[in-house]
Amino acid sequence: MTASSYPSKLLESAVNEFAKLPGIGKKTALRLVLHLLKQDKDQVFKFSDTIHHMRQEIMYCKSCHNISDSEICNICADVNRDHSLICVVESIRDVMAIESTQQFNGIYHVLGGVISPMDGIGPDDLTIGPLVDKIQSGEVNEVIFALSTTMEGDTTNFYLFKKFEKYDIKTTTIARGVSIGDELEYTDEVTLGRSLVNRLPFENTL
Amino acid sequence: MTASSYPSKLLESAVNEFAKLPGIGKKTALRLVLHLLKQDKDQVFKFSDTIHHMRQEIMYCKSCHNISDSEICNICADVNRDHSLICVVESIRDVMAIESTQQFNGIYHVLGGVISPMDGIGPDDLTIGPLVDKIQSGEVNEVIFALSTTMEGDTTNFYLFKKFEKYDIKTTTIARGVSIGDELEYTDEVTLGRSLVNRLPFENTL
Repeated sequence: MTASSYPSKLLESAVNEFAKLPGIGKKTALRLVLHLLKQDKDQVFKFSDTIHHMRQEIMYCKSCHNISDSEICNICADVNRDHSLICVVESIRDVMAIESTQQFNGIYHVLGGVISPMDGIGPDDLTIGPLVDKIQSGEVNEVIFALSTTMEGDTTNFYLFKKFEKYDIKTTTIARGVSIGDELEYTDEVTLGRSLVNRLPFENTL
Repeated sequence: MTASSYPSKLLESAVNEFAKLPGIGKKTALRLVLHLLKQDKDQVFKFSDTIHHMRQEIMYCKSCHNISDSEICNICADVNRDHSLICVVESIRDVMAIESTQQFNGIYHVLGGVISPMDGIGPDDLTIGPLVDKIQSGEVNEVIFALSTTMEGDTTNFYLFKKFEKYDIKTTTIARGVSIGDELEYTDEVTLGRSLVNRLPFENTL
């Protein structure tokens, strides 16, 4: 037996590859690899080929930088959507989250992150340029900021807000308040405070 | 936007493939796929190719049925190990667990499971035949049972014990008792009871 406790180099390499994924340690990786070994070869090949193919073929929409199977994503290509209304989000997952609400009929702009000097991410690392280009084209009426309420998110919000000031567009931000179904008692004070400051006429919520 | 909330079919297929793995749901699968999308193509291809290659090339040792890179595994091929002492285990992971103790210098026999009528696993589904052949060859002095102490494990133990009775070999089972470092107070009564019945002369433990 070698110093390694794996009975096979092939097994060990596969475990090491899985263990590189976030949140997956060596023990979980081994469990996953042994599971794959029990499957039919064809199924495992489908797994590996699907991932290879996805990484090879996937594109980012030239307009909104969302993941896409073509140069322009389905959302940007949809003529029934309001192209004058842009929702600015950090990531692809945020697009999916908002789409699943079925409450938004505009288009998106995926920044690819937020400004975070601590992580070495400046405005130039985000897709801010293309967003400014879109606004300069004059076809945009409103930009909705839907970034996270972290210090980095707020910094990015403010940076973009300042940048867009000179254009004749409306800038808005998604409402923050007590989640539907939540009890006031357990809501954090910042959220509860903001929900009072930004209170709405009752008839608006009907 | 289609009925699916995924912006890309390629992404969706990859997420579905990951979600087939045990303990990985759609949300985790998406997180893993988006992580892979952020990596260099080469790294992702290494991931997929390693898994493809592993499933394609891996072998099972002809002698002990452990995972192996060759027809006979490193353990069975090692002339310094005692080939007359066979430790019977359920799975490859048990081999790795025992190997990591560095307390065993015999060889293994991986059954590939335990007899479990509830799951439709009978003696013929396990590698019992090759084990009997090994014993019949007359080169085996002792067989150690290291199966789990479940009803299925005990059934399998008993089945093998009966099958080997007619051969001139010693059959033993690994010691069950209070784990080292455990407090008696918190040990389950079956384990504690057995540790009393199977008590050892003190000098044996020095």
